[in-house]
Amino acid sequence: MSQQTLTWLDGTPILALPLPDRATDFGDGVFETLLLQHRKPLLLELHLERLQQGLLVLSLPDCLDQVRQQIALVASQLDGQWIWTAMRVSVIRSPGPRGYAPVNSPYARILISASLINRDCATLSAAATMSIANIRLATQPALAGIKHLNRLEQVLAAAQAQSEHMDECVVLDQAGDPVSVIAGNLFLVRRGEILTPTLVDCGIAGTRRTQIMKCWGPAIGFAVRETKLTLADLMDAEEVFYSNSLQAVRPVQRINDRTWDTHTVCEALFRQFLDDIE
Amino acid sequence: MSQQTLTWLDGTPILALPLPDRATDFGDGVFETLLLQHRKPLLLELHLERLQQGLLVLSLPDCLDQVRQQIALVASQLDGQWIWTAMRVSVIRSPGPRGYAPVNSPYARILISASLINRDCATLSAAATMSIANIRLATQPALAGIKHLNRLEQVLAAAQAQSEHMDECVVLDQAGDPVSVIAGNLFLVRRGEILTPTLVDCGIAGTRRTQIMKCWGPAIGFAVRETKLTLADLMDAEEVFYSNSLQAVRPVQRINDRTWDTHTVCEALFRQFLDDIE
Repeated sequence: MSQQTLTWLDGTPILALPLPDRATDFGDGVFETLLLQHRKPLLLELHLERLQQGLLVLSLPDCLDQVRQQIALVASQLDGQWIWTAMRVSVIRSPGPRGYAPVNSPYARILISASLINRDCATLSAAATMSIANIRLATQPALAGIKHLNRLEQVLAAAQAQSEHMDECVVLDQAGDPVSVIAGNLFLVRRGEILTPTLVDCGIAGTRRTQIMKCWGPAIGFAVRETKLTLADLMDAEEVFYSNSLQAVRPVQRINDRTWDTHTVCEALFRQFLDDIE
Repeated sequence: MSQQTLTWLDGTPILALPLPDRATDFGDGVFETLLLQHRKPLLLELHLERLQQGLLVLSLPDCLDQVRQQIALVASQLDGQWIWTAMRVSVIRSPGPRGYAPVNSPYARILISASLINRDCATLSAAATMSIANIRLATQPALAGIKHLNRLEQVLAAAQAQSEHMDECVVLDQAGDPVSVIAGNLFLVRRGEILTPTLVDCGIAGTRRTQIMKCWGPAIGFAVRETKLTLADLMDAEEVFYSNSLQAVRPVQRINDRTWDTHTVCEALFRQFLDDIE
């Protein structure tokens, strides 16, 4: 059996990460999860834009050209039999001496892992079951929006979803208002509009969220609006779905006891995704 | 020249960390920084107590016995010439498949690195210069107190201290009230009392903070009290100092333009530390 996950550091295949490493020690970096179809990264520019934002916020070196080159290099080395691949790209601050203080380096580590996906990403995922995550997202406006490597909250929420046999969880902010799901952005449909929570204090601005707001939503005749949403807004919605890079969009079948059986907007958005990749 | 940092994974010396690793991917774990004098860890039980608290909060396996054994094993392998050693012990959730959801494993990874300290830890550090960190600590009561691996805020504050040629920074919460320094807990002296910020929404409950509250403070005739403190309280204090495992306590010479030249309480506490290690 061939290996299902392969890893490269700065363009070289590795099995182990040379230490010290600041992702391992502090989560000192940012990452992206890309979907590749036949070795082609989808919506690459949106990923690179968000990555660049993260590099800026964390004062990491501007290594976007190297990231682009290494994604292409890794993609070219993938097994041609892999139809769908999940590629994780981490940009990690250069290692240095013990302690929090970073070294001043023009370089960053670029760690890329590629995993075979054993489902057909051109098929809409079955509607998801969800509960509400017990852990709420921290209030941290300085880091909101970027996809940094400090992801304990997502791990704890994912452990809960798993133990409750749920596909996902709605994740709330400290005030108890919905922000997202664990691994994706949250949307609801209300009176002809698609609404998604603002990401001022927490949350990650997903590439598919951007695509829905700028392209897929308008293309199906829906305005998409960021706004403050409550749990009541969510439960009263006509339709609920979420987005992430590996599933594009996924309908929500239920949140706790509230169920939905209409997923037409989500299905229409997914057809836009299919148009994009054809 | 001998190597100044050595690393062990689960008791085996390593130069590189086998991937995947959940500290590298998500910061999914906790850590301790211990000070060793002649290969003997100081205040080991306080470190293990806090570590256990972290394991509990993150639902990590109860591996305290293994941690204790591996600390002893690593300590026994250190160069006898090393008088003072900084030992970092990370407990990392077991690796698993791609994604946030953890695997259910009775084991955790125990990663230990040991670094030679090139100063005499039995000498009080020179009074520190400090500014106020621009980044404020996130409001996250679910993770407050524990020393988890999501430490981007400390990295960003340490970068600021470095760029401003300061020894440390005062770190504030989202409301603008002081919580700690970057790598240590904060204390002030006011009318015969030692005061330290409560750690309800953020911050790490340091082992030396506990020791000051329970032993060193009372031993020098001071009650130590946790309370909500403002920046004004700090600036109006008769004396300011901080604590961490590598320096025990360190006096503060200035915060921005406010200076202190009295450090008698801090000096008395440091003598308690010296009594402890004799």
